[in-house]
Amino acid sequence: MMKKIAFYGKGGIGKSTTAANVSAAFSKMGKKVCQIGCDPKNDSTRLLLGQICRQTVLDLVRDAEDDIQAEQIVHTGFNGIKCVEAGGPEPGVGCAGRGIIVALEKLKELEVLNDEDLVLYDVLGDVVCGGFAVPIREGYATDIYIVSSGELMALYAANNIAKGVKRFAARGEVRLGGIIGNSRNTPNEHALLIEFARRLNTKLIAFIPRNVIVNKAENNRQTVIEYAPDSEQAQVYRNLADDILKNTELSIPTPLKFEELEDLVASYGNQD
Amino acid sequence: MMKKIAFYGKGGIGKSTTAANVSAAFSKMGKKVCQIGCDPKNDSTRLLLGQICRQTVLDLVRDAEDDIQAEQIVHTGFNGIKCVEAGGPEPGVGCAGRGIIVALEKLKELEVLNDEDLVLYDVLGDVVCGGFAVPIREGYATDIYIVSSGELMALYAANNIAKGVKRFAARGEVRLGGIIGNSRNTPNEHALLIEFARRLNTKLIAFIPRNVIVNKAENNRQTVIEYAPDSEQAQVYRNLADDILKNTELSIPTPLKFEELEDLVASYGNQD
Repeated sequence: MMKKIAFYGKGGIGKSTTAANVSAAFSKMGKKVCQIGCDPKNDSTRLLLGQICRQTVLDLVRDAEDDIQAEQIVHTGFNGIKCVEAGGPEPGVGCAGRGIIVALEKLKELEVLNDEDLVLYDVLGDVVCGGFAVPIREGYATDIYIVSSGELMALYAANNIAKGVKRFAARGEVRLGGIIGNSRNTPNEHALLIEFARRLNTKLIAFIPRNVIVNKAENNRQTVIEYAPDSEQAQVYRNLADDILKNTELSIPTPLKFEELEDLVASYGNQD
Repeated sequence: MMKKIAFYGKGGIGKSTTAANVSAAFSKMGKKVCQIGCDPKNDSTRLLLGQICRQTVLDLVRDAEDDIQAEQIVHTGFNGIKCVEAGGPEPGVGCAGRGIIVALEKLKELEVLNDEDLVLYDVLGDVVCGGFAVPIREGYATDIYIVSSGELMALYAANNIAKGVKRFAARGEVRLGGIIGNSRNTPNEHALLIEFARRLNTKLIAFIPRNVIVNKAENNRQTVIEYAPDSEQAQVYRNLADDILKNTELSIPTPLKFEELEDLVASYGNQD
């Protein structure tokens, strides 16, 4: 059965980097993987393709409404991974969320995702408007992972995303799989993220340390899995991929009030 | 005459920190300032209020449609700065951009902004959909500043925002005032940002170095202007505020193609 995963998280938190590395790790396990970027910046699949995706679903829909072939929107990246970017509206007009709906419907229509083991959606999470909730709301993704550091605003965005998951879990299959900690080296960050996940009724499924090898790989337009497969950091991503595959404890989250969140962060020493 | 400024930039780039510090610097010059956060996370005014804004315009609109007083949405922060947060929709439903329209219309109706010298809008820039372009599109802000580091994706978001500015400049008063460099210590970052600004037909109006004093001030829920007024970093923000006040060279931007942008970043040594 196909596993349908979505990664959400604050802008700048490292979602696309994490998503690309996990996709690369999945594919190295022999899985058939498709990564779908749902960010108007088209940057999700960059480390898998070795370049920014230049032909998004929306680019094509705009130019050639009914005459689109699957081959035009599915780009093959590292180790055969299928890469798709939904794309976005012209800057300053239209609805970015609506764009994601159009793109995902087109993918469904073209039957692009029929023989994958894993489909991974990488979604902007600063704006939890209806549009960006589409992959959850329409059942495209069922297993949600939230990337967060120990910084207050990253946790705040994570908590808001959890509110969205809770809302849609009430009427469908959507569940929270866990928090992926992407370290920013804040005080007691690991312990804080464990406790944050516990309060949300989920778990910290990984804690990814900061490592300059990630930047080096990115400067080379590659994942760490490709650039430095023998590094400790590559093993961190492989372990995360493995844990996601084995994860059976998906839950309905219990989001915190902002005051609770602020107290929690303060109690772990991030505030003063 | 009231100066109507908007700060845009990629998520996580330091927009809110920069905005709050510049507002604080303006007010210390004796100016009457209002800062309006247009991010559903409500975090823009946090360093001016010493806490997250707990009553947004949209919170009130939802609860008490026609019976809102200006005092309920205008919170007084550091040195008398008026602080307003537009707010956002319930996570997972509605349009965040539409929320900003409703909030700004309400502010206008309540005549909140009549005696300010400067109004500063702090706007999410990862999503350049119609909604987030509202402050530009509806003429709320005329002088646009874009915060960016030398990282490719921050420049990419900046370039997209410039596309939005160009679109609306064609039919109104909106102009680009400059790029505010917020350093991430990428190779040749300062020179790259100068050249990026030049290509965009604007200028680098400030280059803000990384300094741990910014984090210390934030952990204390204060701007650097309040926390360490005698520091070099505070002077950087004061200089920026001064340069914004004196800026007369506002332009219609000439956005780059992605290939040009990528080549530019590569040529300054960020890529390999």
